[in-house]
Amino acid sequence: MHIEIIAIGNEIVSGYTINSNAGYISKKLEENGYRIYCHLAFADDKEILHKELERAFELSDVVICTGGLGPTLDDVTKEVVADFFNVKCVFDPQIKANLKKRFPDYNSIDRDALIPKGGIPVENKVGTAFGIIIEKDNKALILLPGVPSELKDMFEESIIPYLTKTFPSKQKIYQRSIGVFLKVESEINPLLEKYKLLHPNTEVGIYPSLGYVTVKAAKILSPDDDFSYKEVDQLIGTIKLTFPKNIFEDSIILDLHNLLLEKKYKLALAESCTGGAISSALVQIPGASSYLEGSIVTYSNEMKIKLLHVNKNTLKEKGAVSVEVVDEMLSALLEITGADYVLATSGIAGPGGGSDEKPVGTVCIGCASKNMHKDIGFIHTQGSRERVIENSVNTALAILLKRIKYDEYTFRK
Amino acid sequence: MHIEIIAIGNEIVSGYTINSNAGYISKKLEENGYRIYCHLAFADDKEILHKELERAFELSDVVICTGGLGPTLDDVTKEVVADFFNVKCVFDPQIKANLKKRFPDYNSIDRDALIPKGGIPVENKVGTAFGIIIEKDNKALILLPGVPSELKDMFEESIIPYLTKTFPSKQKIYQRSIGVFLKVESEINPLLEKYKLLHPNTEVGIYPSLGYVTVKAAKILSPDDDFSYKEVDQLIGTIKLTFPKNIFEDSIILDLHNLLLEKKYKLALAESCTGGAISSALVQIPGASSYLEGSIVTYSNEMKIKLLHVNKNTLKEKGAVSVEVVDEMLSALLEITGADYVLATSGIAGPGGGSDEKPVGTVCIGCASKNMHKDIGFIHTQGSRERVIENSVNTALAILLKRIKYDEYTFRK
Repeated sequence: MHIEIIAIGNEIVSGYTINSNAGYISKKLEENGYRIYCHLAFADDKEILHKELERAFELSDVVICTGGLGPTLDDVTKEVVADFFNVKCVFDPQIKANLKKRFPDYNSIDRDALIPKGGIPVENKVGTAFGIIIEKDNKALILLPGVPSELKDMFEESIIPYLTKTFPSKQKIYQRSIGVFLKVESEINPLLEKYKLLHPNTEVGIYPSLGYVTVKAAKILSPDDDFSYKEVDQLIGTIKLTFPKNIFEDSIILDLHNLLLEKKYKLALAESCTGGAISSALVQIPGASSYLEGSIVTYSNEMKIKLLHVNKNTLKEKGAVSVEVVDEMLSALLEITGADYVLATSGIAGPGGGSDEKPVGTVCIGCASKNMHKDIGFIHTQGSRERVIENSVNTALAILLKRIKYDEYTFRK
Repeated sequence: MHIEIIAIGNEIVSGYTINSNAGYISKKLEENGYRIYCHLAFADDKEILHKELERAFELSDVVICTGGLGPTLDDVTKEVVADFFNVKCVFDPQIKANLKKRFPDYNSIDRDALIPKGGIPVENKVGTAFGIIIEKDNKALILLPGVPSELKDMFEESIIPYLTKTFPSKQKIYQRSIGVFLKVESEINPLLEKYKLLHPNTEVGIYPSLGYVTVKAAKILSPDDDFSYKEVDQLIGTIKLTFPKNIFEDSIILDLHNLLLEKKYKLALAESCTGGAISSALVQIPGASSYLEGSIVTYSNEMKIKLLHVNKNTLKEKGAVSVEVVDEMLSALLEITGADYVLATSGIAGPGGGSDEKPVGTVCIGCASKNMHKDIGFIHTQGSRERVIENSVNTALAILLKRIKYDEYTFRK
């Protein structure tokens, strides 16, 4: 079973939009036993698209195209596909009725209701561009809109059920991943090299991020193989044993989220250089309101004094990026909010503001519990402002996860 | 001049990592007159990569590959490339000396210093994986690391100068874009359709986002054409005239950032449902510390009462998502911070917490100036929690930009 994913759109190949759909589709397909080996993206160019459709429909069982289904002038996918199958675009009264009901004032319904003749419409419950499935010669071409939130909904509700029924995969992909926080790639890779010598047929990947590393292992299993998956489990188990107090399962933030919910702890934040990024990352997860009191983002020194009662003299003598200031931020935060745990950051994100003593990338991170046990220290990140902020967010969350999950301090010995 | 961009990595085709490099490279190439028509991504599979290198090196003048250059076991790019050019990987003493100096404790230097024989090393000032250029038959294969911050630095400092010198483009791409905030695609598209009838050879694209729409126009100019660019300018001019008080140039946030710097205004935020996302978006831009006092992220009602002095009865009678509560948040914020402008949000991001009267996606946004002139109202977003937050952030910033740049209220008549 060979499935190909093609993104269509000038906005993608010109770099205006990042193609996040292909990765999402790959993930969902792997979960259902389909392995993907390539992602393609092409401009809204009728000639190029026609040629690529010919190639793809020749080589693959299923071709999934995303984008170019809208009603505006640069959307050419439906036209190219109709031409490729040598049919006309015809008017679908069901799509029209659906859109008329949901978007009575929308002025492009007639164009959205046109689909290549013989195509099966796929309902779009979020937006206006319906998907289309066209079957021919025991193969299928699937067209989906490019807007990620629309595509995701349709892919899970309609396309996965369609594929697993009409083009079932004969294999299973057994796949596990594990995260190791506050460690870097070169600390973990030797272990993987040794493992790979013993198990050359297990797929192993190591993916470094700022503040953590993810290891993935996978094995493609035939239907009667109910043993080989253990090789994958073995690697994951070895990593857990080697780094027992630095492990996360889903993601640092999701593990922390679940732990805070489970323990019924309240969390509050005081952010300077991270500027609300820790808080806004937590808030993306549904249910964060159960534990997150809020974040006092004190970007200026005046705000640190006014809202977090940081002492003027401490600021003057030690500087905003100091253990002493973060210590005062943590104390005030505990007092104001009554939270069980608090996190605070203060640093130099750059590109300006660095000194010899405290270069750009120096960030002081503090974590404290209700009983005022504090854990405060510095991290240093090389590179852009974006990297400094991202590493600070990930590291701060990892420090808190380590503290709550493993009862371990990061900076204190 | 045909340039092809290929991303290499299981992490990309399996959906673990989003391929953001291809878009970045496209953008930089277009700025230098090179047009890109496709993006490809393949797994770390030696056989597939060998075949694709053959195809790409046959069809294109320059092939740019990103990823798979690291020292870990899943990085196969250098090996495949050496095999493709029928050479060995050899040890480069300059790379070794460079890494030894920058990362004395790094344990994979010997592997990083291996490059296909005849390759020209490209310095990586951020990380450890050097780039490599291999020339053959008046064509070039360029290998770059997959980590975006490393790639960007090398692409701008080394690759663009190399390409413009060795493979100069004979054409120029004249390209402009313009943004329209607080409008949707269908309000702008008719204008583009009319324009396209008159100027069928200008490339026009319309890209909807939450809270705004971007229009792009481009024309490929031959070296002696110093006239046709006016067609592009004309479209941009027409859009400005049609939506005179909803225009932004770079991005909503960058326009606002520059305006706040220019006017020397101070800004403070009070965020409930956006949870720090407005603040953290602003803080990504270097220089935000000049105007941003901070953000009081009051996720819980207790924090609204304690930090923003919201009246308990108002919360009880009107609910947290109400004009009255946002009004009190704005007043307190002005008083506490002394800022020139303040923004506040309170809403139901979902998936839970909605009611018939205030369904999920209902967000109250308020903007006020120092003189207490307030502009408060509701927006409604369909879809996921992520979408609700993103639309709230973009819309809040647009409301503030409209207010400062055009002296226009959004909700008040």
